[in-house]
Amino acid sequence: MGSVVGSAVYQAGHRVEDVEIERLDLACDAVQPEPGRFVWIGLYEPDEEVLHKVQRRFGLHDLAVEDAHNAHQRPKLETYGDSIFVVLRTVQLVDGHVRFGETHIFAGRGYVVTVRHGSSASYAGVRGRCERTPRMLALGEIFVVYSVMDFIVDNYFPVLHALEAEIDALEDRVFKQRSTRADIERIYELRHELMTIRRAIHPLGEVCTRMMRFDTPLIEERVQPYFRDVQDHVLRVVEQVDSLRELLTSALEANLLFASLQQNDVMRRFAGWAAILAVPTAVAGIYGMNFEEMPELKQPWGYPVVLLGILSVCGGLYWRFRRLGWL
Amino acid sequence: MGSVVGSAVYQAGHRVEDVEIERLDLACDAVQPEPGRFVWIGLYEPDEEVLHKVQRRFGLHDLAVEDAHNAHQRPKLETYGDSIFVVLRTVQLVDGHVRFGETHIFAGRGYVVTVRHGSSASYAGVRGRCERTPRMLALGEIFVVYSVMDFIVDNYFPVLHALEAEIDALEDRVFKQRSTRADIERIYELRHELMTIRRAIHPLGEVCTRMMRFDTPLIEERVQPYFRDVQDHVLRVVEQVDSLRELLTSALEANLLFASLQQNDVMRRFAGWAAILAVPTAVAGIYGMNFEEMPELKQPWGYPVVLLGILSVCGGLYWRFRRLGWL
Amino acid sequence: MGSVVGSAVYQAGHRVEDVEIERLDLACDAVQPEPGRFVWIGLYEPDEEVLHKVQRRFGLHDLAVEDAHNAHQRPKLETYGDSIFVVLRTVQLVDGHVRFGETHIFAGRGYVVTVRHGSSASYAGVRGRCERTPRMLALGEIFVVYSVMDFIVDNYFPVLHALEAEIDALEDRVFKQRSTRADIERIYELRHELMTIRRAIHPLGEVCTRMMRFDTPLIEERVQPYFRDVQDHVLRVVEQVDSLRELLTSALEANLLFASLQQNDVMRRFAGWAAILAVPTAVAGIYGMNFEEMPELKQPWGYPVVLLGILSVCGGLYWRFRRLGWL
Amino acid sequence: MGSVVGSAVYQAGHRVEDVEIERLDLACDAVQPEPGRFVWIGLYEPDEEVLHKVQRRFGLHDLAVEDAHNAHQRPKLETYGDSIFVVLRTVQLVDGHVRFGETHIFAGRGYVVTVRHGSSASYAGVRGRCERTPRMLALGEIFVVYSVMDFIVDNYFPVLHALEAEIDALEDRVFKQRSTRADIERIYELRHELMTIRRAIHPLGEVCTRMMRFDTPLIEERVQPYFRDVQDHVLRVVEQVDSLRELLTSALEANLLFASLQQNDVMRRFAGWAAILAVPTAVAGIYGMNFEEMPELKQPWGYPVVLLGILSVCGGLYWRFRRLGWL
Amino acid sequence: MGSVVGSAVYQAGHRVEDVEIERLDLACDAVQPEPGRFVWIGLYEPDEEVLHKVQRRFGLHDLAVEDAHNAHQRPKLETYGDSIFVVLRTVQLVDGHVRFGETHIFAGRGYVVTVRHGSSASYAGVRGRCERTPRMLALGEIFVVYSVMDFIVDNYFPVLHALEAEIDALEDRVFKQRSTRADIERIYELRHELMTIRRAIHPLGEVCTRMMRFDTPLIEERVQPYFRDVQDHVLRVVEQVDSLRELLTSALEANLLFASLQQNDVMRRFAGWAAILAVPTAVAGIYGMNFEEMPELKQPWGYPVVLLGILSVCGGLYWRFRRLGWL
Repeated sequence: MGSVVGSAVYQAGHRVEDVEIERLDLACDAVQPEPGRFVWIGLYEPDEEVLHKVQRRFGLHDLAVEDAHNAHQRPKLETYGDSIFVVLRTVQLVDGHVRFGETHIFAGRGYVVTVRHGSSASYAGVRGRCERTPRMLALGEIFVVYSVMDFIVDNYFPVLHALEAEIDALEDRVFKQRSTRADIERIYELRHELMTIRRAIHPLGEVCTRMMRFDTPLIEERVQPYFRDVQDHVLRVVEQVDSLRELLTSALEANLLFASLQQNDVMRRFAGWAAILAVPTAVAGIYGMNFEEMPELKQPWGYPVVLLGILSVCGGLYWRFRRLGWL
Repeated sequence: MGSVVGSAVYQAGHRVEDVEIERLDLACDAVQPEPGRFVWIGLYEPDEEVLHKVQRRFGLHDLAVEDAHNAHQRPKLETYGDSIFVVLRTVQLVDGHVRFGETHIFAGRGYVVTVRHGSSASYAGVRGRCERTPRMLALGEIFVVYSVMDFIVDNYFPVLHALEAEIDALEDRVFKQRSTRADIERIYELRHELMTIRRAIHPLGEVCTRMMRFDTPLIEERVQPYFRDVQDHVLRVVEQVDSLRELLTSALEANLLFASLQQNDVMRRFAGWAAILAVPTAVAGIYGMNFEEMPELKQPWGYPVVLLGILSVCGGLYWRFRRLGWL
Repeated sequence: MGSVVGSAVYQAGHRVEDVEIERLDLACDAVQPEPGRFVWIGLYEPDEEVLHKVQRRFGLHDLAVEDAHNAHQRPKLETYGDSIFVVLRTVQLVDGHVRFGETHIFAGRGYVVTVRHGSSASYAGVRGRCERTPRMLALGEIFVVYSVMDFIVDNYFPVLHALEAEIDALEDRVFKQRSTRADIERIYELRHELMTIRRAIHPLGEVCTRMMRFDTPLIEERVQPYFRDVQDHVLRVVEQVDSLRELLTSALEANLLFASLQQNDVMRRFAGWAAILAVPTAVAGIYGMNFEEMPELKQPWGYPVVLLGILSVCGGLYWRFRRLGWL
Repeated sequence: MGSVVGSAVYQAGHRVEDVEIERLDLACDAVQPEPGRFVWIGLYEPDEEVLHKVQRRFGLHDLAVEDAHNAHQRPKLETYGDSIFVVLRTVQLVDGHVRFGETHIFAGRGYVVTVRHGSSASYAGVRGRCERTPRMLALGEIFVVYSVMDFIVDNYFPVLHALEAEIDALEDRVFKQRSTRADIERIYELRHELMTIRRAIHPLGEVCTRMMRFDTPLIEERVQPYFRDVQDHVLRVVEQVDSLRELLTSALEANLLFASLQQNDVMRRFAGWAAILAVPTAVAGIYGMNFEEMPELKQPWGYPVVLLGILSVCGGLYWRFRRLGWL
Repeated sequence: MGSVVGSAVYQAGHRVEDVEIERLDLACDAVQPEPGRFVWIGLYEPDEEVLHKVQRRFGLHDLAVEDAHNAHQRPKLETYGDSIFVVLRTVQLVDGHVRFGETHIFAGRGYVVTVRHGSSASYAGVRGRCERTPRMLALGEIFVVYSVMDFIVDNYFPVLHALEAEIDALEDRVFKQRSTRADIERIYELRHELMTIRRAIHPLGEVCTRMMRFDTPLIEERVQPYFRDVQDHVLRVVEQVDSLRELLTSALEANLLFASLQQNDVMRRFAGWAAILAVPTAVAGIYGMNFEEMPELKQPWGYPVVLLGILSVCGGLYWRFRRLGWL
């Protein structure tokens, strides 16, 4: 059963025993009576069999298990009697593209089950950190829920920093008017990805609020500040996403404005040169007419004078357009 | 009476008897006294006579029946004393176009009446599924209401997936700048259809909230998680609609931006070639003048030198414009 | 006194007596003591004298009467002790243009006074319909208030349908790119008119909510579903207005986008022809130079070869531009 | 002390005595004990000395007096114990430009102090009107507060009407495409001024709500409808401002759209004429070539036929472009 | 320990003793028992050692200290039991660019600790001002919190005034159409900076609301008006930021509109001159043809007449375009 990542019993903040998922019933029967003792099971994309074993053991609600199996949920907190079910969306950057995963947490008196789907970092590190602070872990099941949520939310920041760097580079190219069509397409793509990130993280603020308000026996008052802290991080992620989206929208707007201004420039420059070149054409056309009596044609100074005239008119126009900023 | 699709009496989750709408009064008189026993009648675009028979039998409110007859309602939940009246909008994709239908549910102690109008899938499947889970159906009338709502909301997803595929293809053509005018018209049309879908589904979230809050004897606490689940699906539909609308808006924006950039390209290219071609015209014009004294004209090297001069100036301009990215 | 449109005493839902406004005091003195008995007076743009007679008789509040006199109010519900004052905006289509009117309703124990201003349909029909359903009218004064509100709100639908037809036609012309400047002006005008309609109807939703919540003796629980029904219609009007406004905004956007795309088309076509026509001009210019030694000029095949060359280059360009989709 | 505009003692709605600000302490000592007796002092941009005398006399809060001195506050209602402090923004039109002023009202048991800053009409008229309706003024201090607020809000309407007239004229010029650059600048300026007006009046709605909710002994239930009336006027001002802003935004949008359409027009017309004039240039260029063997040149009919050919091609193009709507 | 900026014990509003951070435990042990006596410590970017000493002494919450150490928090108010933790963002203008800092305030019974990070003015001035008004400082710890918050909020105004001056100048250049590309880039930058300022100050309004609502023993009713005053200033900052952002958005919009109008101008002018210059080219081309029989060519008046003809047609076109406003 490769889908079980970790599974251990904790007592007063200390790991007291490892359990195998097959012997779950035996291991846990001993757990429930004692307060401060709980089992923490970590699963990764579990098959149906494992999920149902866990469901039977802890009496999880059908709808929650169904959600956990078909991973495409919105972040949410559901409460079924004394137990809670949390859906979280995780984020990772794979080859510069945002990839989402999902984590489901079932928690109740005596157990925490985390189910990981798709793209996310392993929670072995979270387990390790929890075990290194037994004083905190002694707060019970809810501290595990907090630790996983905190870890997931904190994993949004490096993704945003990477996107920020890319956006800064894109913005710079836009303002230096060296943006390519691929850049623009990437800006639209990033804007959409940021919106998706926003949708993945924003409902967590509400989840935290309900966590703090909620009065299941699971959630003690001492844990409140921790969820407030997670909520604060959620708000910061949302704020940064909004800020980045604004930058991208501004970049697109600026692109359109610059395209318009540049068209004016090209237009004016083109009009200027067309005007300058129209002069020799018109003058030469006139002296190319075949009238028999065109006295200028017979003068020896005719040609140089006309050439000089053309040059000086062209020069004059050039000077004038230059001064107008057209050329 | 072809408008009656199905009609049966249920007792403790099991179908105990089929009733004909003509003998409704007799069949149902036996129903009411016993709790856990109810009749479920399914109608499709019923005529006035059938509706009034049902109304008389179950004491439905005038306004609700009037609504059920003139199908153009907003999704809503109305409560008249102990009974509820739910209006839902159904959606189907017919030849790539979104078609809406309406379903009205009357539910009260001892009866559920579903009235289907316009475009929607039949509820025979819902009835079948309910009958296969008698444990759930034993929850009573409200479970039928839930099952129909759940079925209707879940039918939004395939429609959205089909639209998503079309939108992806459209977006792709826009970003590859191969979008036709028909594509653009379709984008506007899709954006409007998505808005209509949003309006058809969004009020359902509020309906679910009220379902969960409400304290008619019909709605037990055990049913709450089910309506919460429907609400969650509603939110996911709304979110997906919003996401698709954003994509379409971005595609339109990108189209405008690309049109502007492309105009600049055409403009520059045109200006470049005009400038290159203006050179031979101007030079040839000058040597086409009919002055008697134009010493160059008499030289045997005049013609090739001028030709060469023209070619080299044109070549120089071409090379320069190329480097500027104009050609 | 032409401003009095109708005035009658009702008892238990039946019209028992017509009263003249001059003898109001006498007629009504008999009314008040009995419950279920009330007078319904309909006024159309009344002069000050009539309004003050009515005010004195029923003890209406100064501010309400002042409002009723200067018709330019927002839709609202005011309560003064046991009596209520409702301001409604009516709408009519006059020569394709939206015209607004106002109706004020004073209602209290024993009386309903409706004051009509400006553009609106007569309420004689409402009175007739009420009198034909004495069972409902027996609900008392508040049913008259409901009937007038219902009538006013329902009168928004034909106006919206007419506008919808016009908007569909306009949208069609925009997407077929046959919209004229007058069409665009009309789109802006319609958008503003729809906004005004929205402002005229939207506050009514809030009025209905307060009607349902309110606990004056006037408003019984039995009447609640009726105001909920009005509120529902208000929401449908607002939704339809929003939908139409979106269509207009899309039409304007599409217009701008199409103008931009069309400019690109014209531009490209123009550039194409200019390039094609520049070839004979340049070549002919060169062979129009007056050099003495231009060997081609002396060949008998010179002229046809050059002509053929020009034609084949032009033809080649034409074929190429065609393939690029420029011509 | 020119900053004192008016100062009088009122008893049961009647002016009983004028007081000088110097003898305030004496005059007012007599006031407080009796209910229904209060002093109303009107100040215009008072110096610090006067303000402090008033503050000492009535025990005004430091922060309120500081606000009253530095006039740049947001409209608000502050309550300090039994007394209230209201900040209002006044508006006037000076040479077609919107100018703002501020009025601060201190009111408590036995006194009302109004402090006027900057651009606003004098409150002498308000005082006069109050004194002419002693029945209302007998409501006490709060009626003075209402009267001043009502007066200030009503003064927004003529300003809006003036702006509306100007906006109508501007809109007309835009739609007739005769708008100048100065017009556009004015539209932007008006849009900003309207936003500033909105900010100056909008918080007053909230102030009125709190006035109605508030339970200081100052505010009796009888006064509620009056503040509701002010609130209603505030909402009407806000609505009108929003409507005007929409008109301006539409005008700007229309301007951009028309500019784009007009450019297309100019473009097409230009391209049309360029194409027509390119024909004689190309043809004449060909017959201006100096080949020795160009048989047409020797025919006597050559010249008229070519001229005719040019004319007919040009005419044909002209006719065709005309039909395409290009010229 | 250079990070300690000031540290003193206050009793009944008067500074009674300076304490060194090393002897904090001794100094403060004497403090706590007496009400009205508290220590105020000011830190600037403290190292971990100092922070932990302070944390141990006053029992600060781990999460708050962690926040104080990693300065990148959103403005917020956290309450841990009887003590509060406030995060504020400070703003300064450095070389025309907005720079942010952070200030954290820990306050509880007997102590106030302010921790300053990054760009902000020193709080020595605040301490001085507090010490000069012992009557206010006697309100206790919460008055220090108020004073620092008030100081921070008031420091936003000069920054906004400086930005306003710059924005006015930019706007002026845009409307006079003399804006450069650097100006536009600056407008986008300013718009983003204003948004960042808004995010830095806006949550403070909520913090003030909670300060006023909160019932820790720290916050007395007498202090309420002071926080209301801070909140008012926050709202004014937000309003001014919004107003400036609107100006910038309008400036960008105007820029785009003007660019479009100017392009039309250039276009028309260019088309006009091209049309005028096309006349001599076409006419001269015709009389440059080499037909043997072109009778005009042989007339002595041919040349001057044609020249005159060209001139008069060109003049006519010039006059006409002038009248159309094209040139």
